[in-house]
Amino acid sequence: MKDFIEPIARLIGAFQKLPGVGQKTAQRYALKVINMSESEVKDFADSLLYAKNNVKYCSVCGNYTDRDPCEICGTRDRSVVCVVKDPKDVMAIERIRDYNGVYHVLHGVLSPMEGVGPNDIRLKELVARVGADNVKEVIVATNPDVEGEATAMYIARLLKPLGVKVSRIAQGISIGSDLEYADEVTLSKAIENRREL
Amino acid sequence: MKDFIEPIARLIGAFQKLPGVGQKTAQRYALKVINMSESEVKDFADSLLYAKNNVKYCSVCGNYTDRDPCEICGTRDRSVVCVVKDPKDVMAIERIRDYNGVYHVLHGVLSPMEGVGPNDIRLKELVARVGADNVKEVIVATNPDVEGEATAMYIARLLKPLGVKVSRIAQGISIGSDLEYADEVTLSKAIENRREL
Repeated sequence: MKDFIEPIARLIGAFQKLPGVGQKTAQRYALKVINMSESEVKDFADSLLYAKNNVKYCSVCGNYTDRDPCEICGTRDRSVVCVVKDPKDVMAIERIRDYNGVYHVLHGVLSPMEGVGPNDIRLKELVARVGADNVKEVIVATNPDVEGEATAMYIARLLKPLGVKVSRIAQGISIGSDLEYADEVTLSKAIENRREL
Repeated sequence: MKDFIEPIARLIGAFQKLPGVGQKTAQRYALKVINMSESEVKDFADSLLYAKNNVKYCSVCGNYTDRDPCEICGTRDRSVVCVVKDPKDVMAIERIRDYNGVYHVLHGVLSPMEGVGPNDIRLKELVARVGADNVKEVIVATNPDVEGEATAMYIARLLKPLGVKVSRIAQGISIGSDLEYADEVTLSKAIENRREL
């Protein structure tokens, strides 16, 4: 890294920690930062710290939030719970703008290969929630891949005894792809065509 | 931007100021930051401020530096001066590792279309330097496009009366492309085959 003076080399190193950012891209970002005004760079640094310090997990649904419970849990129809793997998936479903229920973020899916069991994801919290709240339906919106399907089946078996309706988003989204990248129409259709498990 | 809570939305906005970063990419970066440890985020923010506060322009060559004059000006053969448009181009030439002269960064090229005239780039400083230092050769390594060529011609006319040899890097690098992206071999050949103007 003797190609760069130390302050630039260090900044390039920091940018390389971002997903998909290699040496060349990090270098472009770093030079852009050098050319920003002092207040712009200060604002950039502040927004990093501000986000890290103010974004927490909602104690109810597990989604990112800056208050607790989160805005979605506080204002929406709590009788329908959509179960997703990641906060990213909440964002994806929120973009379609016609889902009015709440969420439950698992923070992972069952994966025997990677040693992720039922106690490693937020399943206990889901059962407790369904038992306590007046939940009528649980829509399982994990990714349509092997692990996502297995997790959906597991959740169905887990919740059926509680007398709640458990549904699965339709396989309108192409198999093997990632929920995060589905387009709004496909995702909307997938929720509409959910089938009971 | 009501898709995101405010701290995340603000961070996404900050990332979108980087070159080539759109909404989706900025979102991925922001979520990665949320998932970093507190010390990693602090380090990221620090490296932004540290780079902005510690990177200055060398008073001799105009390149980025953390001391003045810069390491290159202080340790290398000052009788050969390579003239480039941007600090990025210095980095590109440094990567070939067989140039032992110094640099002169213009911070732009002549461009009547964009209203950039001889007084808007560091030409005065170049003339002063060639007059004062014992400069034997000036290698003009501006990009091989219209503006880069025009700037090279202008510099040749400007410096010839001072009795200094003015050369141009060979057109080994493909026309219309950017110096920053040339591969090391091509760039090395281009310097080797420089022709006198």
